[in-house]
Amino acid sequence: MERPRHQGMAKNTYMRWRLPLVCLLWEVAMIVLFGVFVRFGPEADAHWEEEKREMNLTSDIENDFYFRYPSFQDVHVMIFVGFGFLMTFLKRYGFGAVGFNFLLAAFGIQWALLMQGWFHSFKSGKILIGVENLINADFCVGSVCIAFGAILGKTSPIQLLVMTLFQVTLFAVNEYILLNLLHVKDAGGSMTIHTFGGYFGLTVTRILYRPNLEQSKDKQGSVYHSDLFAMIGTLYLWMYWPSFNSAISEHGDAQHRAAINTYCSLAACVLTTVAFSSMLQKKGKLDMVHIQNATLAGGVAVGTSAEMMLTPYGSLIVGFICGIVSTVGYVYFTPFLESRLHIQDTCGIHNLHAIPGLIGGIVGAITAAAATEDVYGKEGLIKAFDFTGTYRTRTPSVQGGFQAAGIVVSLLMALAGGALVG
Amino acid sequence: MERPRHQGMAKNTYMRWRLPLVCLLWEVAMIVLFGVFVRFGPEADAHWEEEKREMNLTSDIENDFYFRYPSFQDVHVMIFVGFGFLMTFLKRYGFGAVGFNFLLAAFGIQWALLMQGWFHSFKSGKILIGVENLINADFCVGSVCIAFGAILGKTSPIQLLVMTLFQVTLFAVNEYILLNLLHVKDAGGSMTIHTFGGYFGLTVTRILYRPNLEQSKDKQGSVYHSDLFAMIGTLYLWMYWPSFNSAISEHGDAQHRAAINTYCSLAACVLTTVAFSSMLQKKGKLDMVHIQNATLAGGVAVGTSAEMMLTPYGSLIVGFICGIVSTVGYVYFTPFLESRLHIQDTCGIHNLHAIPGLIGGIVGAITAAAATEDVYGKEGLIKAFDFTGTYRTRTPSVQGGFQAAGIVVSLLMALAGGALVG
Amino acid sequence: MERPRHQGMAKNTYMRWRLPLVCLLWEVAMIVLFGVFVRFGPEADAHWEEEKREMNLTSDIENDFYFRYPSFQDVHVMIFVGFGFLMTFLKRYGFGAVGFNFLLAAFGIQWALLMQGWFHSFKSGKILIGVENLINADFCVGSVCIAFGAILGKTSPIQLLVMTLFQVTLFAVNEYILLNLLHVKDAGGSMTIHTFGGYFGLTVTRILYRPNLEQSKDKQGSVYHSDLFAMIGTLYLWMYWPSFNSAISEHGDAQHRAAINTYCSLAACVLTTVAFSSMLQKKGKLDMVHIQNATLAGGVAVGTSAEMMLTPYGSLIVGFICGIVSTVGYVYFTPFLESRLHIQDTCGIHNLHAIPGLIGGIVGAITAAAATEDVYGKEGLIKAFDFTGTYRTRTPSVQGGFQAAGIVVSLLMALAGGALVG
Repeated sequence: MERPRHQGMAKNTYMRWRLPLVCLLWEVAMIVLFGVFVRFGPEADAHWEEEKREMNLTSDIENDFYFRYPSFQDVHVMIFVGFGFLMTFLKRYGFGAVGFNFLLAAFGIQWALLMQGWFHSFKSGKILIGVENLINADFCVGSVCIAFGAILGKTSPIQLLVMTLFQVTLFAVNEYILLNLLHVKDAGGSMTIHTFGGYFGLTVTRILYRPNLEQSKDKQGSVYHSDLFAMIGTLYLWMYWPSFNSAISEHGDAQHRAAINTYCSLAACVLTTVAFSSMLQKKGKLDMVHIQNATLAGGVAVGTSAEMMLTPYGSLIVGFICGIVSTVGYVYFTPFLESRLHIQDTCGIHNLHAIPGLIGGIVGAITAAAATEDVYGKEGLIKAFDFTGTYRTRTPSVQGGFQAAGIVVSLLMALAGGALVG
Repeated sequence: MERPRHQGMAKNTYMRWRLPLVCLLWEVAMIVLFGVFVRFGPEADAHWEEEKREMNLTSDIENDFYFRYPSFQDVHVMIFVGFGFLMTFLKRYGFGAVGFNFLLAAFGIQWALLMQGWFHSFKSGKILIGVENLINADFCVGSVCIAFGAILGKTSPIQLLVMTLFQVTLFAVNEYILLNLLHVKDAGGSMTIHTFGGYFGLTVTRILYRPNLEQSKDKQGSVYHSDLFAMIGTLYLWMYWPSFNSAISEHGDAQHRAAINTYCSLAACVLTTVAFSSMLQKKGKLDMVHIQNATLAGGVAVGTSAEMMLTPYGSLIVGFICGIVSTVGYVYFTPFLESRLHIQDTCGIHNLHAIPGLIGGIVGAITAAAATEDVYGKEGLIKAFDFTGTYRTRTPSVQGGFQAAGIVVSLLMALAGGALVG
Repeated sequence: MERPRHQGMAKNTYMRWRLPLVCLLWEVAMIVLFGVFVRFGPEADAHWEEEKREMNLTSDIENDFYFRYPSFQDVHVMIFVGFGFLMTFLKRYGFGAVGFNFLLAAFGIQWALLMQGWFHSFKSGKILIGVENLINADFCVGSVCIAFGAILGKTSPIQLLVMTLFQVTLFAVNEYILLNLLHVKDAGGSMTIHTFGGYFGLTVTRILYRPNLEQSKDKQGSVYHSDLFAMIGTLYLWMYWPSFNSAISEHGDAQHRAAINTYCSLAACVLTTVAFSSMLQKKGKLDMVHIQNATLAGGVAVGTSAEMMLTPYGSLIVGFICGIVSTVGYVYFTPFLESRLHIQDTCGIHNLHAIPGLIGGIVGAITAAAATEDVYGKEGLIKAFDFTGTYRTRTPSVQGGFQAAGIVVSLLMALAGGALVG
């Protein structure tokens, strides 16, 4: 009683044995590497009772799990449902988008746990993981999902898995340079996730340019039900973005602030997206593609600065600008990219991630440079930018400079990495 | 490479420039007003370290963020996915419902942050916001989404935005009268959100009465996939309603209790909805519209009393009654409203929000009046009804009277406000 | 203005009055029983302030509500959206699956609160409930949803409700034997939920065997949109499974660990599912049914051991194996069950719940037997397996034996109970 198989996920021509082999071998490799390296961090280990005494914690509720688990689950939904369903607005690739997104993300998070673990959680030969590592792995994979949006429909599952392997690796290197070497703040990943993932994907799609794809334009069209499925993706990304930007911020005020800033920026972004979508279309009709995508740019663009004292009105301004930039990008820039630069950006990630990511990096650099003891308080300023240890003499304006350097590094890593992988 | 545009959202005939202009001007106004008035509250401000010392808090986990953020995200999902997708059961308005709901809510939460802020969080010239304000803004917009359910398909986006502006304003005034002047408890908003939003919407739709809408009855029909999309809306509202009713209750037992009461009421409501839906239809078949809507009435009807000692069996009784009332309302009352009173209630909000909201107000008044020191404990009674300061001599029975007054005020404000806006 | 009714949910031929009567009478019974027995537990009662002093708690955040409520909401989504939508992959039963799942779960949680309450939360004549009871009720109903997956399309709503009544009762008895008499650990319910629910459902469907169902095989087929709806179910189950397995674990490290183990197991399971699905199909295409179901087996199979020191690589190994076993089961075992054993397993729960549940029980027994003071710490070992009171002399290897006994008991209870109910 074999059930009829759905064809959508298998339009590609790969040999029967290659995908299974790659999946199995890589998973075996993961098991071996996890066996050698990965252990529970102190807050997830059964020795926690002793740890608690050492850390002078009086209650189980002070386990990092309770600070971050709700945000983790929201981020998890964004990666698997949000990114997956957002891409269903393309009629032709609906199911494949959700399914391949599932596959690459499930593989990517394992590799990300290792790569990020080696850089950030490595202690006496072991990677010690906790809920924050799970969030970071999801973040890392988020940048792969973004890049996937650019090449949707052009690659086989195996190519996707290979791209995931390389992109996760480069992501971890880039993140290490930014967070550890440059000591840059980027809680919501404007630079590390969106700028990097966006330009990485665009470079790859440039190299995979296929002129004949243009003829099948009509299959890129959206239909009624696809639009509703895509709105599920859009709305979950939009609603949970405050969790995304606050998930790995410092405990307390920073997480709180990051959520508020993101909430404000996203709200403003919806209004300017609607305004420009209506303005730039014939007869003032709204373009669903704008509503489904550009409304999210506000979340991307406060990714770096959300945990800073951007203030609610500052967030509104950022959201206001990004709704406009992103919508205008969909109308004028995507066609230009394709016709002149031969970059076929299937889901328009240039407008949703790459450009807003750059804006987010710049806003972050400015917000950091403008920080004062007056606004943050003496302790607050040190805590917000972690001006301790080696960095205790760094000033806000110097921090702003390093933030700006972080943008450039992310951009270069993305272009070089994308070229390599492509 | 312009993607084909979906037509569903743009059946209305508005001039090309009006919607963009309204959106942009209003968003600019929001930025200016936020710039003048809105700042981070103490728990989201970078001065939190100093604040913590002053408030004698020993851990970051005592930041209000951790008490309320998970509930906030659930409420957020209810407003944007729940209300949006619930309305997709109408084949004709599917996409428009989700899209316009998105637009009006994104605008409404900004204006609500200001209006509610002036009334409740205004300190030395500034509105200080935190996660509780975000929840309250979502709540306020919830009442607009409810009213939108009554007029779905009759208004242009601009009219919707104007309605949002006025309704949010009146909501904040009504809420101020109830919570501050009458010192009434209404954590889940039976009165402030559902009674107010419901009758507001019904009054507006009465005034916008269009006889010719009756002819297009067939387009109001639902189809298979629309029903599944609508069930997404229904289920998210149903599942997260315990978060809705507990989101802004006092820390500790009150939040805990509110979630349990709501869980029980909703469970009972499903069974009586199914019973009466089956009973009142020819051949005992179930009507999807009942399953999608009346099952939620139990959540509305414990909105006021959920944080009180309603007890689990009390909640079951309320859910039991509301499933019946709401289903009977869909079968007999909605047709009556349309044919006799010329009230075209597109989504049947009278049965889902207005009447259950009234019941909720009454149940709240009775539960408050019946409160005793025996059941609540001496401290518990004072804490539950905030019998402190000016209100320290108020007795439960007097509180019951004020609760009843709150119902009347909400009803009158809704009718007057709806007439004005309509 | 009667709205056109959807037919999908009412293909069954039951008399007009029976379903309403059953629903109403049972709900009345629930109200009476709740009235006699159910009260708020100390953490949800208005006497909490006094309780807090007695328990020496310094902050409201130590209320169990804040430890478990986010996980509770995730589990709630899994039961109502996850299980409901997963079953929509069957074109014919799409709406009925979601609707009937809603009905049986709403009834089941009430009866489960009572049954489990009598066994576990009964104090001086009253059942005292809190958020943990809500989670356990959801868990119990989860096992009914699983069994429902086997008999989908064969029963009337009344039969479903009767099955729910009996299965919940037997679930509570079985759970009592395992957790209290055998002192077995089973936080994620590999044995109590999945093994029990799976074999219960399979026994029932065996007894309800209808040869003529085979002819309508074509109606079991899936279609494009059904597949996307089913993916919503799949993904929510997959994403929230870490919450499922950690929801009722001990505060602190155990919850933290359970989430990490489940996350790892699920990720590995996706890769081997894809590998074997592709390998076993002609032309290497992927079968959507595998992607929608077998990817979840990894969560089931760490249900018992997730809160133990299974370690991340141990979890990967379990997920690796289960993806293979489950996929192979769909390809070879489901047809065999139907043709030889006359077990029509509509949704393939044998491969998704029954077998992975057994594996989960075995993995749990091994992990428990292998526990050492070295790995857990002296205190950690006692806390992890609750080796206190009567059980303070129990050793890990003895615990392993009891865990194994728990598997057998669950299996026998399921077969006997299923035969009885069928």
